[in-house]
Amino acid sequence: MVTLNDPAVQSYILYSAILALKVLTMALLTGRVRFAKKIFANEEDAKASKGRVKLDDPDVERVRRAHLNDLENIPAFWILGALYLTTAPAAAWATFLFRVYTASRIIHTIVYAVKPMPQPSRAIAYFIPYLIKWYMGIKVISHFYGAM
Amino acid sequence: MVTLNDPAVQSYILYSAILALKVLTMALLTGRVRFAKKIFANEEDAKASKGRVKLDDPDVERVRRAHLNDLENIPAFWILGALYLTTAPAAAWATFLFRVYTASRIIHTIVYAVKPMPQPSRAIAYFIPYLIKWYMGIKVISHFYGAM
Amino acid sequence: MVTLNDPAVQSYILYSAILALKVLTMALLTGRVRFAKKIFANEEDAKASKGRVKLDDPDVERVRRAHLNDLENIPAFWILGALYLTTAPAAAWATFLFRVYTASRIIHTIVYAVKPMPQPSRAIAYFIPYLIKWYMGIKVISHFYGAM
Repeated sequence: MVTLNDPAVQSYILYSAILALKVLTMALLTGRVRFAKKIFANEEDAKASKGRVKLDDPDVERVRRAHLNDLENIPAFWILGALYLTTAPAAAWATFLFRVYTASRIIHTIVYAVKPMPQPSRAIAYFIPYLIKWYMGIKVISHFYGAM
Repeated sequence: MVTLNDPAVQSYILYSAILALKVLTMALLTGRVRFAKKIFANEEDAKASKGRVKLDDPDVERVRRAHLNDLENIPAFWILGALYLTTAPAAAWATFLFRVYTASRIIHTIVYAVKPMPQPSRAIAYFIPYLIKWYMGIKVISHFYGAM
Repeated sequence: MVTLNDPAVQSYILYSAILALKVLTMALLTGRVRFAKKIFANEEDAKASKGRVKLDDPDVERVRRAHLNDLENIPAFWILGALYLTTAPAAAWATFLFRVYTASRIIHTIVYAVKPMPQPSRAIAYFIPYLIKWYMGIKVISHFYGAM
């Protein structure tokens, strides 16, 4: 039984919400670069802001890649984290994983799109949460294998 | 406790399903433009439909941007809406938020990709649901802050 | 009431986790092509791996399109599948749908990005799971229509 009294569940809820707001923040980062450089993706936006249409600006594209990387990873965390809770993990361990996951993904965005850093900064900030998702996924599959 | 008898939960389920079908509809919109212009992203598709490969058609790209914008926003709604239900919001208020969210996102697609309109149409249809997500996220975080 | 004892719920959990790991595998497929061709999206990556920056390599772009297609479809499955469980479907039928969905999406990736095949291979592997999502969505909406 998964209940709201379980500290692992509370931790999942908290960190999932933080990650959601973190994903939403990417739109603000993209907007900041677009307005600073007056570069837009749509004719009507360029017109409204007296800018121009350009689809290959390297600064805009860098933020967009960071955003897409979030979309490739964070919804998978939302589902895997929720499913992982159904395997009754130890609360302290689950909380530790969720916390490291969230911190790493925030660092990933910083070294990718806020203040670009040489590798392997981004690779490390990518693979730690990536492995956490695999770990949770394998735990879930081995727990529910009988439902195949 | 979150239960299926709660009208807020029923409302969340209904509007989340509507939004999911709305996201799926984007693929039909893209297909419609691709087949009308005989422009495809893959060699094998162009061959099968006697069209050609072209990756920068402005009409196709506009629909694809609207689709990507959904992916940036709607999965975040699904998780934030579900987590928001665990904070026991008043049912009428939660239902109001879900309803406005869904209507705004549908309007966003219409003014972006079905019948492009001058700004600020799309900006308004974007920021209303964007702020609803932030509101729900902040409510969740302030409710579960102790689980940090 | 949705409970973990329900075989449909267990099946949903299992197949959702398999799909999540399948989405994560796309990053490995992209990485494999990038490293084989020494082609990267970021200056710092090219530097670290003695490669070069190129944003329009057809082999990399094909895998990226398959990845994006997953993002357009699989999160929608996660939510629709979960919501569908709240309509109390027959367990054997729900399990059948989840199983066919998962198998089709894996085949979709294979014929798109691992070993590209002529159409209609990919179209079939796309539309079967696409229709399953519509079916589940319509079931959910007709069940909770009163919450509009």
